[in-house]
Amino acid sequence: MMGGAIGMAARRTGAASRVVGVGDNQETIQRARVKGAVDDATLDLRAGVQDADLVILCVPVRTILDAAGSVIPACRDGTIITDIGSSKGVIVHQVEALIHKLKSKVHFVGSHPVTGSEKKGIDAADNVALHGAPCVVTPTQQTDNEAYHKVDDFWKALGLKTTRMSPEDHDTVLAHSSHLPHILAAALVAIQSERSLEISGPGLRDMTRLAGSDPTMWSDITAQNAAEISRALKELSQEIVRLSGDVEMLSAHGTPGAEVARERLFRYLADARQRHEKRFLVPEKPIEPEEGEDLGANEPESQSSGFRV
Amino acid sequence: MMGGAIGMAARRTGAASRVVGVGDNQETIQRARVKGAVDDATLDLRAGVQDADLVILCVPVRTILDAAGSVIPACRDGTIITDIGSSKGVIVHQVEALIHKLKSKVHFVGSHPVTGSEKKGIDAADNVALHGAPCVVTPTQQTDNEAYHKVDDFWKALGLKTTRMSPEDHDTVLAHSSHLPHILAAALVAIQSERSLEISGPGLRDMTRLAGSDPTMWSDITAQNAAEISRALKELSQEIVRLSGDVEMLSAHGTPGAEVARERLFRYLADARQRHEKRFLVPEKPIEPEEGEDLGANEPESQSSGFRV
Repeated sequence: MMGGAIGMAARRTGAASRVVGVGDNQETIQRARVKGAVDDATLDLRAGVQDADLVILCVPVRTILDAAGSVIPACRDGTIITDIGSSKGVIVHQVEALIHKLKSKVHFVGSHPVTGSEKKGIDAADNVALHGAPCVVTPTQQTDNEAYHKVDDFWKALGLKTTRMSPEDHDTVLAHSSHLPHILAAALVAIQSERSLEISGPGLRDMTRLAGSDPTMWSDITAQNAAEISRALKELSQEIVRLSGDVEMLSAHGTPGAEVARERLFRYLADARQRHEKRFLVPEKPIEPEEGEDLGANEPESQSSGFRV
Repeated sequence: MMGGAIGMAARRTGAASRVVGVGDNQETIQRARVKGAVDDATLDLRAGVQDADLVILCVPVRTILDAAGSVIPACRDGTIITDIGSSKGVIVHQVEALIHKLKSKVHFVGSHPVTGSEKKGIDAADNVALHGAPCVVTPTQQTDNEAYHKVDDFWKALGLKTTRMSPEDHDTVLAHSSHLPHILAAALVAIQSERSLEISGPGLRDMTRLAGSDPTMWSDITAQNAAEISRALKELSQEIVRLSGDVEMLSAHGTPGAEVARERLFRYLADARQRHEKRFLVPEKPIEPEEGEDLGANEPESQSSGFRV
């Protein structure tokens, strides 16, 4: 899904002069061709990466290290490798150690485009909104500065908003904004009875959409960032316990305590709404593109470096 | 929003022979006419309800009792009144007591169509999916049986899936499936730093959509169902604490404890996905309507009782 989405965007924006897809079965490769996600595609990993300027590892976090192990020896000196894994600390340090061990002359820079969907596979590539999405790029003290900038420029050329962070900072931040929500969506399903699940509306449906994600992939991501996610879950549980106390006070209708609790709950909900709208509210009527103009043309001009990806 | 959506559906399906909207300002009334949500509309509540067979109170929970107090004396004997409030225990018992006190011959039956959006106002009426949505109808020992069936039939004619429940059972169930999610969405925003809110994707956006709801309305709903919501929040916090412990064990990579914790987390996520998909998964390609056929025509045949609403 993500590889397909990135391939389509790289070709559409001209961020890459040539996109080569590497797949693990003929059907995926054929679909990638039909979708226009690749200029060429192959089952042969060595052949696929040997001429690349930039290799993007679009595989689940558990297999990124294995994928890097296959890719690194097949690349020319100076090739830049990045990934799109949702956790960064473990991955970045393992891949850097591997490059060091192999005495390879490739450069690795970790990336995390923060977008996607609960789905998988090339056919879901159209569900991915890359344009305007955040993308964290995580150089370390060992990262080649030019390689970092090229990776950063590549994501920008695709329309993503890049942020530079250490792998560790990334993992703290994403534990809150992405990893915890995935686990929370499952918990929210788990506390429902059959009846309450049935008698529910679009609110519960949207809040539990992430519960439809792949359980293997999310067990792996959780394992790679376990300490931070565990801490974030504890924070949330304390917040909920506090709220539960406030709500309990509300049930003593007409008492001064209930009034104070109501005022506090109102403030809480109003603050959350304000922060939510500031971040996520999309204007109801976006400026319409000129007639006949393709929406893709609204994306920033490609900063193409003639990458072969 | 809800009044407009119900008016449009009642006219489209023929569930009502005539829909009269009562608004509190001229602009809303005008827009309701333009949208085709009403056959006629008025600012005069007495005039609006005096010929009605069924009156639907589409006002925030805090004002339902006041609205009932204005409507009841203006109705003919035998008129059926229902509401669409998200809490039922407090409302149903207050309105029944009011009818008793006024010695009125109208019938009240509580309803809760479990659908909507975080928005408000007639212009948002198109956002509301009534067809296929659950609707709880909450008769009590005092409810006229014929009135209950007429209300139930009305919602069915609009395409909702009705369920009969006591007001108390409704409040327990909806505390889990609707009220808690609204508060949880706010809590999920509250634990984000400015940075984690910024570096987030569609997952967090969808999980916090309900945080965009009206804080006054949801403070009121929470106050009316405080005991049940407080209990549900405690349940969820215990679930999250337990998960946090499992995730912490995961961080001890390679230990037997970590393996057990991983297996348990995987099971948990897989079970949640299964329940989520069973309830919410919509087939990717629904059967297409015949060319030129209106989607509304797919709704079940109206069981119109010639209601004037």
